[in-house]
Amino acid sequence: MTSNNEDSFNSITSISELRKIVQQARLSGKKIGVVPTMGALHAGHLSLIQEALARTDIVVVTLFVNPTQFSPDEDFGNYPRPVEEDLKKCKEAGAHLVFHPDVSEIYPEDAYTTVSVNTISEKLEGQFRPTHFDGVTTVVMKLFNIVLPDVAFFGQKDYQQQLLIKRMVKDLNVPVEVIACPTIRDPDGLAMSSRNQYLSKQERETALLVPESLKLAEKMLLDGEEDFDKIKDAMKKLLTSSDEVKVDYVSLAHPETLEELKQVQPEIVALVATYVGSTRLIDNRIIHLSSISSNQ
Amino acid sequence: MTSNNEDSFNSITSISELRKIVQQARLSGKKIGVVPTMGALHAGHLSLIQEALARTDIVVVTLFVNPTQFSPDEDFGNYPRPVEEDLKKCKEAGAHLVFHPDVSEIYPEDAYTTVSVNTISEKLEGQFRPTHFDGVTTVVMKLFNIVLPDVAFFGQKDYQQQLLIKRMVKDLNVPVEVIACPTIRDPDGLAMSSRNQYLSKQERETALLVPESLKLAEKMLLDGEEDFDKIKDAMKKLLTSSDEVKVDYVSLAHPETLEELKQVQPEIVALVATYVGSTRLIDNRIIHLSSISSNQ
Repeated sequence: MTSNNEDSFNSITSISELRKIVQQARLSGKKIGVVPTMGALHAGHLSLIQEALARTDIVVVTLFVNPTQFSPDEDFGNYPRPVEEDLKKCKEAGAHLVFHPDVSEIYPEDAYTTVSVNTISEKLEGQFRPTHFDGVTTVVMKLFNIVLPDVAFFGQKDYQQQLLIKRMVKDLNVPVEVIACPTIRDPDGLAMSSRNQYLSKQERETALLVPESLKLAEKMLLDGEEDFDKIKDAMKKLLTSSDEVKVDYVSLAHPETLEELKQVQPEIVALVATYVGSTRLIDNRIIHLSSISSNQ
Repeated sequence: MTSNNEDSFNSITSISELRKIVQQARLSGKKIGVVPTMGALHAGHLSLIQEALARTDIVVVTLFVNPTQFSPDEDFGNYPRPVEEDLKKCKEAGAHLVFHPDVSEIYPEDAYTTVSVNTISEKLEGQFRPTHFDGVTTVVMKLFNIVLPDVAFFGQKDYQQQLLIKRMVKDLNVPVEVIACPTIRDPDGLAMSSRNQYLSKQERETALLVPESLKLAEKMLLDGEEDFDKIKDAMKKLLTSSDEVKVDYVSLAHPETLEELKQVQPEIVALVATYVGSTRLIDNRIIHLSSISSNQ
């Protein structure tokens, strides 16, 4: 299990073994890519692996359901962990290494250290999941220090997450290039998510309101609507046209700072977080208003 | 200025240039050591450089007065910056690279990210300098990511600092070995510090009470005193035998957690922070009580 032949596939649970193999590849001049995931892989994750294969020589996929990014009332215990299926998918996708450590390998004892991207982490998701992003940025910093990748791949579906990781990397001079890849959607428009499997058939239908609300925002903006409260009200109205939906937030935000916008600008990110039944879904859409010049 | 010959000496202010030279050395199999300092180098710093030369192939000294670890009422503006003298000392000591960036190179824009070692950073110094250690751990993480050293050298004089950095490295899987080197003292016992130069001749004399209070604690413990409040009272009494001294804290603490101890154990760290006149001094002493077994 310790060959570093590019065509081989290694499934690894120990930090020291992973470091040894990756270091060998690095010394032989290979470019290392990492795709950090919580497993329960779907086509969205596989698109990240494809992008990593296109841009790097050795692709490491990490499967780790990170306890510190769940609050006690969230679904850490129930989060799907189909490890054997995930390993098979990674192998078939062409990944070279899968790192799927136990919690005790990543957190062998009480840890005191937190990496926080202040301000930006407190908005949107941070309002509803106040400890979530500190857990994310801290574990991603750990995974970066373990794998020492040249490039890391994240999905744009978790818009705030990829933004925070890019910001962390910039602020802390982390020598990793972070690439955010487009959201992968089912043919009907629902963004792929490991949590979609929690949805009943009826809820799966209702969940389409989420991407539809983002498209509605885009349409209204492209049609020239400039009253952002009106747009957000229309989004909420559409979302809550089903009794199964509870909206956490809808936002029209600055793509870098996530500050709520009050007037049109060339690029706007629309973000939504809702419960559909008891399943929490997030989605986003970047809206380009090409007719707006950037110095307006 | 870009040779990586081991006998050469490079003074560098740009991150990209430093990375290029260190990377070249790393690829040729050299072990990289870093000695992070705020400059105003004294024999304590030089001892760190010596230790680094003994243990690594390429020694990088960083000189950077980090604004984020000073509070607005502290001495950031007045902190000594004798860059030319520091460069000369580094060269004479045998360091290979000195990295002395401008503030704008390290903080090119507003940063949002903080690395915090919670709990331990809030004790002792953290009580009196609440934002200090977040500034330290964040900039050290940045310097580690810039230099990518194999080994980093810190002085034990800043006991809590080296402890926090060791903890950060462990918690975040940073691939750096952290070595704390013994405090270097003037012949009369005063711990070397860049801030000693603020002391008047009279204050310099008074400052000896600081190491003497630590020796007093050691003597009382070795003599069998088990009442820690009594020992700390004796330390404070000695320190305040001069009107020029204002005590911030005296502590008898657990060497790893910095929790205040209530009973003897094999290893105890005694720590003191005082003002002597308007100059703040810290010092510490590790006390070994060999007759105490560790499972008591």
